[in-house]
Amino acid sequence: MALPVLPLLLLLEAGGLRAAERSSSAMEEIATEKEAEESHRQDSVSLLTFILLLTLTILTIWLFKHRRVRFLHETGLAMIYGLIVGVILRYGTPSTSGHDKPFSCSQENRPFTTLLVNVSGKFFEYTLKGEISPGKIHNVEQNDMLRKVTFDPEVFFNILLPPIIFHAGYSLKKRHFFRNLGSLLAYAFLGTAVSCFIIGNLMYGVVKLMKLVGQLSGKFYYTDCLLFGAIISATDPVTVLAIFNELHADVDLYALLFGESVLNDAVAIVLSSSIVAYQPTGENTHAFDAAAFFKSVGVFLGIFSGSFMMGAVTGVVTALVTKFTKLHCFPLLETALFFLMSWSTFLLAEACGFTGVVAVLFCGITQAHYTYNNLSVESRSRTKQLFEVLHFLAENFIFSYMGLALFTFQKHIFSPVFIIGAFVAIFLGRAAHIYPLSFLLNLGRRHKISWNFQHMMMFSGLRGAMAFALAIRDTATYSRQMMFSTTLLIVFFTVWIVGGGTTPMLSWLNIRVGDHVPLAEEMNESRWLYFRVGVDPDQDPPPTNDSFQVLQGDGPDSERRNRTKQESAWLFRLWYSFDHNYLKPILTHSGPPLTTTLPSWCGLIARCLTSPQVYDNQEQLREEDSDFILNDGDLTVTYGDTTITANGSSGPHTATTSLDGRRTKSSSEEALERDLGAADYEVTSRGTRLVFPLEDNA
Amino acid sequence: MALPVLPLLLLLEAGGLRAAERSSSAMEEIATEKEAEESHRQDSVSLLTFILLLTLTILTIWLFKHRRVRFLHETGLAMIYGLIVGVILRYGTPSTSGHDKPFSCSQENRPFTTLLVNVSGKFFEYTLKGEISPGKIHNVEQNDMLRKVTFDPEVFFNILLPPIIFHAGYSLKKRHFFRNLGSLLAYAFLGTAVSCFIIGNLMYGVVKLMKLVGQLSGKFYYTDCLLFGAIISATDPVTVLAIFNELHADVDLYALLFGESVLNDAVAIVLSSSIVAYQPTGENTHAFDAAAFFKSVGVFLGIFSGSFMMGAVTGVVTALVTKFTKLHCFPLLETALFFLMSWSTFLLAEACGFTGVVAVLFCGITQAHYTYNNLSVESRSRTKQLFEVLHFLAENFIFSYMGLALFTFQKHIFSPVFIIGAFVAIFLGRAAHIYPLSFLLNLGRRHKISWNFQHMMMFSGLRGAMAFALAIRDTATYSRQMMFSTTLLIVFFTVWIVGGGTTPMLSWLNIRVGDHVPLAEEMNESRWLYFRVGVDPDQDPPPTNDSFQVLQGDGPDSERRNRTKQESAWLFRLWYSFDHNYLKPILTHSGPPLTTTLPSWCGLIARCLTSPQVYDNQEQLREEDSDFILNDGDLTVTYGDTTITANGSSGPHTATTSLDGRRTKSSSEEALERDLGAADYEVTSRGTRLVFPLEDNA
Repeated sequence: MALPVLPLLLLLEAGGLRAAERSSSAMEEIATEKEAEESHRQDSVSLLTFILLLTLTILTIWLFKHRRVRFLHETGLAMIYGLIVGVILRYGTPSTSGHDKPFSCSQENRPFTTLLVNVSGKFFEYTLKGEISPGKIHNVEQNDMLRKVTFDPEVFFNILLPPIIFHAGYSLKKRHFFRNLGSLLAYAFLGTAVSCFIIGNLMYGVVKLMKLVGQLSGKFYYTDCLLFGAIISATDPVTVLAIFNELHADVDLYALLFGESVLNDAVAIVLSSSIVAYQPTGENTHAFDAAAFFKSVGVFLGIFSGSFMMGAVTGVVTALVTKFTKLHCFPLLETALFFLMSWSTFLLAEACGFTGVVAVLFCGITQAHYTYNNLSVESRSRTKQLFEVLHFLAENFIFSYMGLALFTFQKHIFSPVFIIGAFVAIFLGRAAHIYPLSFLLNLGRRHKISWNFQHMMMFSGLRGAMAFALAIRDTATYSRQMMFSTTLLIVFFTVWIVGGGTTPMLSWLNIRVGDHVPLAEEMNESRWLYFRVGVDPDQDPPPTNDSFQVLQGDGPDSERRNRTKQESAWLFRLWYSFDHNYLKPILTHSGPPLTTTLPSWCGLIARCLTSPQVYDNQEQLREEDSDFILNDGDLTVTYGDTTITANGSSGPHTATTSLDGRRTKSSSEEALERDLGAADYEVTSRGTRLVFPLEDNA
Repeated sequence: MALPVLPLLLLLEAGGLRAAERSSSAMEEIATEKEAEESHRQDSVSLLTFILLLTLTILTIWLFKHRRVRFLHETGLAMIYGLIVGVILRYGTPSTSGHDKPFSCSQENRPFTTLLVNVSGKFFEYTLKGEISPGKIHNVEQNDMLRKVTFDPEVFFNILLPPIIFHAGYSLKKRHFFRNLGSLLAYAFLGTAVSCFIIGNLMYGVVKLMKLVGQLSGKFYYTDCLLFGAIISATDPVTVLAIFNELHADVDLYALLFGESVLNDAVAIVLSSSIVAYQPTGENTHAFDAAAFFKSVGVFLGIFSGSFMMGAVTGVVTALVTKFTKLHCFPLLETALFFLMSWSTFLLAEACGFTGVVAVLFCGITQAHYTYNNLSVESRSRTKQLFEVLHFLAENFIFSYMGLALFTFQKHIFSPVFIIGAFVAIFLGRAAHIYPLSFLLNLGRRHKISWNFQHMMMFSGLRGAMAFALAIRDTATYSRQMMFSTTLLIVFFTVWIVGGGTTPMLSWLNIRVGDHVPLAEEMNESRWLYFRVGVDPDQDPPPTNDSFQVLQGDGPDSERRNRTKQESAWLFRLWYSFDHNYLKPILTHSGPPLTTTLPSWCGLIARCLTSPQVYDNQEQLREEDSDFILNDGDLTVTYGDTTITANGSSGPHTATTSLDGRRTKSSSEEALERDLGAADYEVTSRGTRLVFPLEDNA
């Protein structure tokens, strides 16, 4: 584990020179200072370039939103601006660097991460930046500006990805996510694996073909192909989802797409790690090896579950800290703590050899599920807004960078055969991912995933930030460089073409969009006022006439109830009751008091862990508004006549939260049913008598 | 300007080796991959270290606030935790790196920023990290972890300082700032220059002494001493101000301290640049040179005014963009734009060779003065909260890093004589800065700066983040390294000792604190609920019984009015009327319509630039609540009987803003008077008839 990073000491025995230098050292110092200053200025200019790019993107986004342009998403826009700037930097800036005569010295035959160079008695430290393919040496030397705008790939992984992924987890719509959990897990795990293997094998064929034709000028192993399959299997339908959100398209399709892509990313990143882990077994074995394969599967499971645990644990720790301290009196401290803890999950996982992205995703989900409830009102909006801004900036930065990288990245290898092969492969891979799996899932699902939905999912398989970050992470070898260039092109193509085609596709596939917002109609100003870019945690797209059941033709009510039943398998029900009876009361101020759910011999612990507010809630419940209490008796009596099915509107999150406290007397089973079905049976206003239409045949 | 960064090509002619290598290249690749992985893990661990440090700091801050501990500020705390972790890293981690045999190769006699090394046919790029003093080579090699936690100084300048400085500008209390502008400018410009020269000269004496005693083992020129003077003249009374805020100490003293330190930082940083610029004139001239001196003064003025302009221009551009687009419909976009524009000021200034810190400071002031009024309500709170969190994290990070750097920084040179000399010098420098200047200012000021205030200002000359960032920026030479180590110790000492002594000092000097909050009494919970760390832009410390006039013994009312008159010199009045009549209407939605203030031949432009809301405001004013209109006639009639002098409370900022629209009919002179005096004559509620007690003898 503690593999040493060997620094190399290059000593220049500058013999007789030393005396002569002393006198000129003042001039030297000044020159060094000037150089450092110049370097600083270039750093500033390169950062400034990106900031201006983002500013331009923001202004254009605003203009697009203002003019209701929907054929190009902000990320596509960011890429276009990036491309333009990339072209300017590449062909517009003069080559500023001189060229020194080459020096010879003896050195060991592997590179070191750190180099110590003795220049006339002074020691200078150099750090390894990366390998440069021999043909590109000239480019590297000639343009400092190009080098400056090329970021360390670690920046993407340690700085830019965490907020994006965390935001996805934090804003995940629990209800829809859990309702489709089975399908989502199947799509994510099985689907990504299938996609990865199919793309990998197809690409291996392409590579073999290229070797035959003589177009391959470097090594390209089978494992490299598989790695490419894993990298490119990470879908990122950010564009499609933004349009869904905007048009209030079908909520279940939204949940399927969003959930799939989020989990997909997590699976793809772990898959790529385990493929990398597969490589070093044996001497020259880039062929298949059963033992190594199972080892890789083990690595996959280990990394995934480890990352999952790490994310969940950090979330739980944050929840406990926010519950048992009075940090909520100081929203600034609370927000800062929340931010730091969430980021530390990422780093902790990376430091332990797990996958930070997966950890931070599950941390986000845990934070939203538990910690969020403990935060002060101000911190809730602060954390959401903070991560929203960070996510927005990071995402647009990555997409701008992608555009820029097409021209400024200096190790591109574009192979037409490989690129065309890759496009065919991702198409087939996506098809093999979606259609067979949907068929299998439909065997088990009561509410089938319709053909139109399948087509839409097939269509929405965009590649984005995650594929790019995975591809740029390592561009040291020939095969990796070719993969990177191809990935870049795939991202461009899918984001522009597919992203732009979402609206026509939706109408072509007859997928219903929001009740009151016909597809072609302009949205009114007030709607736009609260429109937010990306995914909004609070605001569900209002449920539409349910496409599932309409397409199935079953009776609406029984179908709904069955679905609720169907999706909540026994394992999930077990988890839910555990969560409701123990985790929620321990980690938050809501749920039933632990003193009632834990066995009596745990009395002391239960009393310590239960928040006093829980009792308060119970007291209130009993004394004041007994009308609102929901229990079995109440429901079976009132069900049938006073049911309010508020189909057209979804209450804001806060309303749901405020109801939480009032549900404490009912059993976890009921709570589960309500939570799962709540999207359809949302209550319009608090003044109305709240009755949830549960199953009468339960 | 376009000094080329020369890359150096080190070619390894590895002759016969090449064939043998090919076979082992697979193993090599794996080794390189492993190394990269290890390096990534170490990066994560080092970031994690800081995050955990910050988390710990936050929790302890909470505990301190909860228990009302006030002897140690959060920044002092962050430093202590940093120190502890530094000790652990230094002495607790094993030396992981091996040691290779030294290599010899011929190279030119100056370092290059980029190194290309040819290792067995592959090219690797290395970047210069810095010089290492010969004695320290062993340390450098031995501990990777120490190297990993040592950040590039550019991180401080490009990432951490901007939010801190911007926040200072954005949260500057305009009123108090402008009321004391003359004194503040005197303290900042004259004072910092005096302090710099006195410290520089004293230190030169110390250095001479050290040379005599034989304690100096490197070069230390007069300009280095002056540079040290400039670096250490940047005061940062963050601790003191936090306590002032908490105790609601005298608002004028607060304004003097805060304004002085903010401008001080700006002057010190430009001063240090111009001293660096002074150095290279001539061949061996580290002595005084009149021509070079005036050139330096020119550089100083050029850089300062350039930076000032740049900051103001970016602020103005942002104001125009937010005024003329409807970005306020999309708070996320608005906030992102605001953030990016503000940061770009910094980078733009740096890229142009100006000083980013100064630019970002004036950008912050401009943004607060104009752009803030154009933002949507949500964006106002978003931007404030965003910068608050960023400022909080950045500041605590810097202070943690300082603690850490004492042990992990590898180029420390501690010289007891120099350190003691420096402490004496900063004491004398501060004294020569405060007392004579205050004496001179008191000659011109009606409301004198009392002795107690002078003592408090003398006492509050803490050194903090800015001095540290200036010192760490360049640690290449012997003298700079010694300066850095000394600066670090000075920061530690002043933050801990002086910061901890603020509360006793306040009571010892009889400086009054908030009306209802006696010094020793516990503050009640509700007060703490809204307490925020650092400086709050919205909330003035409630004006106390004005210490100035009490100490002077003049009649309270005439004194107040005279002060208003006094402080607003003709230049300032000119600026104010220009701002009120032209800038505010052009850049924001408030102020009088340009059609009334501009000459008639500008009619078209005036109509284009004037926001329709201004007319609306005027209409409303005329038709509906004529009661609220304030003009000369009204005031002189009503003044004297219905005056409301709400001394005990300061209205929130929003109230003041909403009043802006209603003041449009009155002249700019009046508005000025009111704005300057508004702290004392704040109005309690909007329901009350609003009458401002202006001067009756005007």
